[in-house]
Amino acid sequence: MKRVLVTGASGFLGRHALPDLIARGYQVHAVARRPPMSTDGVTWHAGDLLTPGCAGKLMQELRPTHLLHLAWDVGDGFWSSSANLSWVVATLSLVEAFATAGGRRVVAAGSCAEYDWSQPLLAIPEDADRRPSTYYGVCKDACRHLIQGFAATTGLSLGWGVLFLSYGADERPNRLVPSVIRSLLSGQEAHCTAGTQIRDFLDSRDAGAAFAAFLDSGVEGAVNIASGEPTTVAEVVERLADIMGRPQLLRLGALPSPPNDPPRLVADVRRLRREVGFPPARSLGRGLEDAVAWWRATLRGS
Amino acid sequence: MKRVLVTGASGFLGRHALPDLIARGYQVHAVARRPPMSTDGVTWHAGDLLTPGCAGKLMQELRPTHLLHLAWDVGDGFWSSSANLSWVVATLSLVEAFATAGGRRVVAAGSCAEYDWSQPLLAIPEDADRRPSTYYGVCKDACRHLIQGFAATTGLSLGWGVLFLSYGADERPNRLVPSVIRSLLSGQEAHCTAGTQIRDFLDSRDAGAAFAAFLDSGVEGAVNIASGEPTTVAEVVERLADIMGRPQLLRLGALPSPPNDPPRLVADVRRLRREVGFPPARSLGRGLEDAVAWWRATLRGS
Repeated sequence: MKRVLVTGASGFLGRHALPDLIARGYQVHAVARRPPMSTDGVTWHAGDLLTPGCAGKLMQELRPTHLLHLAWDVGDGFWSSSANLSWVVATLSLVEAFATAGGRRVVAAGSCAEYDWSQPLLAIPEDADRRPSTYYGVCKDACRHLIQGFAATTGLSLGWGVLFLSYGADERPNRLVPSVIRSLLSGQEAHCTAGTQIRDFLDSRDAGAAFAAFLDSGVEGAVNIASGEPTTVAEVVERLADIMGRPQLLRLGALPSPPNDPPRLVADVRRLRREVGFPPARSLGRGLEDAVAWWRATLRGS
Repeated sequence: MKRVLVTGASGFLGRHALPDLIARGYQVHAVARRPPMSTDGVTWHAGDLLTPGCAGKLMQELRPTHLLHLAWDVGDGFWSSSANLSWVVATLSLVEAFATAGGRRVVAAGSCAEYDWSQPLLAIPEDADRRPSTYYGVCKDACRHLIQGFAATTGLSLGWGVLFLSYGADERPNRLVPSVIRSLLSGQEAHCTAGTQIRDFLDSRDAGAAFAAFLDSGVEGAVNIASGEPTTVAEVVERLADIMGRPQLLRLGALPSPPNDPPRLVADVRRLRREVGFPPARSLGRGLEDAVAWWRATLRGS
């Protein structure tokens, strides 16, 4: 029997891993500070992973064979917040308690912030240099390094999903896609940077499903979780404006580019495609249409 | 008022920091799993830092202004033990709880195992490449990295004491100096490697005092805690044999050299001497004589 514990399971991305894990035959347990009322086929547990002892108690109680660890606070200011250290402690405690309770395979979420952003590679492979330029990146990188060594000495099977940009329903309102949609929906101008940065966008439903596939695949080491398709930020916001029929409200170049913003961040997705065997199900156009529809419905309902 | 909490305070090295901290005007608190019966001027607290919540409870109770964190398990097999991860969690939890409780300055013990041992520098400065070749080194290096970033965002003053080799009373019996002394005391041959490796040995009393001086100095960043004097392993064991009058029992070359044993590990101690202002009080000869006397008295008494 495969029993998985999912953290961050009520989050923007984690919720989309759950149906896929059920379909793959897992008994699915999920932990959240405030569990949702119900989710078909998922057993929810209330718990705060930042509370000392929470991980140990959960693991002893559930004894999962698999762990999908997606939880991390990425609220305002998370790039440089000292609170990232709490999530390092929570992450390491969780993995250690999982192994102690007999767990066999863990997949955890890393970040493209681990990579050296000063090297504008056409596509970043998983063995590229790590030189994080943010404290968030330092923390994710240290977790990867520490858990890799731990897995090597304990025989734990470890997958590290290096997440690039993800967007979709219920994304934090001040992020790129929601903020543009919300401005245009309310008839206000959407002020953006010039948008020349090249990025790699993945629908959150595909990102969640990719993590489920990665866990189930048994593939070890780092795997980029991304679309692999280079897209400028300008292209994304122009598509949104087109979908919404309000291109005249778009103000590209109205905001200065953030300092140290890397010109290009695109993943090499060969490991995800060939080894994990995961192809995204949705095009960028389809994903953005659905995001617009979700915000329309949500804001109409509020 | 300066109130310091010392971890690892009952250890081989930590015990020697205590009188020095008292002399420098600190109110000294110490935590240990099994506190000793008493130590003049030190308030002992029983606690296991590996227990979730222990650090937070201690910090809320004591609210120290300073933290000297020396605790770590370095028992048999520690170079590659998965238990090192528990000490990472304990270390990060401790520093975070210290900052949350209003702590201002922390000095923690790093290790020469953080450095890249494949580069045989004449003397290793603190800004040398870090490329640990052991899991213990990976864990110490990650702690340094994570705590540095945390200190930068929270305004905590951080000193990182990079400890080289230390020897002295009550050292673990299977380490170099005690194992040779014990063999010779019992009239048995002491089997050693050829001993051509060049190392940097510091008396544990000086190492403890150096950590106390470092804490009190306010100096930030990494500082090597070492003698800076290159000495071959052969020279150390030959001196021991001479002190004990049993050179005929020494068997240099009887054991093969461990694989990947670096030929030279010597610290650049300019920061310790000039910035911290700490000179070791004891020569190698004096330190080894005292170690022999300690083992003679201990084994006679047992």
